[in-house]
Amino acid sequence: MQITILGGTGDIGEGLALRWGRDTDYQITIGSREPERASAAAQAYQKQLETHGYQVTIQGQGNEAAVNDADVVVLAVPPYHVSDVLDAVRQSVPEDAIVVSPAVGIKRDEDGFHYHRPGVGSVTAVAADAAPDSVAVVGAFHNLPANALQALDNELNCDTVVVGDDDQAKKTIIGLADAIDGIQGLDGGPLANAPEVEGITPLLINLAKYNEDLHDVAVTFH
Amino acid sequence: MQITILGGTGDIGEGLALRWGRDTDYQITIGSREPERASAAAQAYQKQLETHGYQVTIQGQGNEAAVNDADVVVLAVPPYHVSDVLDAVRQSVPEDAIVVSPAVGIKRDEDGFHYHRPGVGSVTAVAADAAPDSVAVVGAFHNLPANALQALDNELNCDTVVVGDDDQAKKTIIGLADAIDGIQGLDGGPLANAPEVEGITPLLINLAKYNEDLHDVAVTFH
Repeated sequence: MQITILGGTGDIGEGLALRWGRDTDYQITIGSREPERASAAAQAYQKQLETHGYQVTIQGQGNEAAVNDADVVVLAVPPYHVSDVLDAVRQSVPEDAIVVSPAVGIKRDEDGFHYHRPGVGSVTAVAADAAPDSVAVVGAFHNLPANALQALDNELNCDTVVVGDDDQAKKTIIGLADAIDGIQGLDGGPLANAPEVEGITPLLINLAKYNEDLHDVAVTFH
Repeated sequence: MQITILGGTGDIGEGLALRWGRDTDYQITIGSREPERASAAAQAYQKQLETHGYQVTIQGQGNEAAVNDADVVVLAVPPYHVSDVLDAVRQSVPEDAIVVSPAVGIKRDEDGFHYHRPGVGSVTAVAADAAPDSVAVVGAFHNLPANALQALDNELNCDTVVVGDDDQAKKTIIGLADAIDGIQGLDGGPLANAPEVEGITPLLINLAKYNEDLHDVAVTFH
């Protein structure tokens, strides 16, 4: 399994790279618009894994080169970059790849953080609209606590709801979630069910703000 | 503490009445448009508590009479009845009462259940608009698993996010949530943060539908 994380230099990208690097045998490639930044991040993640006793090779490349052999492409970029990044790699994404969208639109006012729902319904739907028709698009990893994910000493206990219209692709991504210790992937149904999943992220930020003992909050369903 | 549950003959109303009846010394009154239905429900809940070994008096009255001495009024009615019910009891609600809104607008299509957001932002905001100016309106108990709540043998483990603009009122309702064994009240911030809380309920229904081992799902934040 070859996973390419576009925007892999950001918080969630780093967290997922470190966790998959530690907990699985997947080949991880970090993509960035600037190949040098991707390489630097990949080396930093390798080093971090090494200090925890794990010898893992992580690649870093420009976005287009990074997706060339990908089985799974994770769009760990801000929501307003999802379409642009997909446009940029359109010619290079393998036809049978799965594109994963974890981005959430958030707006802030004096009361707190709110879900900023795109006109097409969700950021996952934005990704589905912008992706080549041949690839399956799945929404996942929207509500992970970024800091806890990055801190490898931190034992996770969180669920991630996976949505998508291609059942086989969804199953694969639920497997990718389950492969990380302390993360459980749940089936949220078709891609049209993404808005209610994405909407949890601003709520988590509000909970962290208004409750003393809740930092970097995770969510579980049971 | 005198709690009146309007729509107390419904699922969530019954569950809250039984749990507060068992776990607290609060005086519980069930309100319904038809006083006879309220009385019958109150007697049925008393009987159910009795079979579990708890001797508790629960009142049942017509909506107007039921709110007369209430410290807290819970609007356990469908979202499209929130305004009407508040209009009907407007003259009777004590000035310093707290009105609690647990209702969620939900619409269904072939993909699953979706949050049906009212124009004013949330059902909690609908309640705030319809309530007398003197009372504080708080959103809470939106995401509780109804069947688990009603089944007293079932040990709960769920959080409920409480939102509102009156900090003291919000604190009181968080206390009411914490008073039920297995429920923890969390501060979600101002009332404007209600939509993201209400939006979780349709997601829980989707999770129950698409995951074999998740029935009557609860949510926790940690």
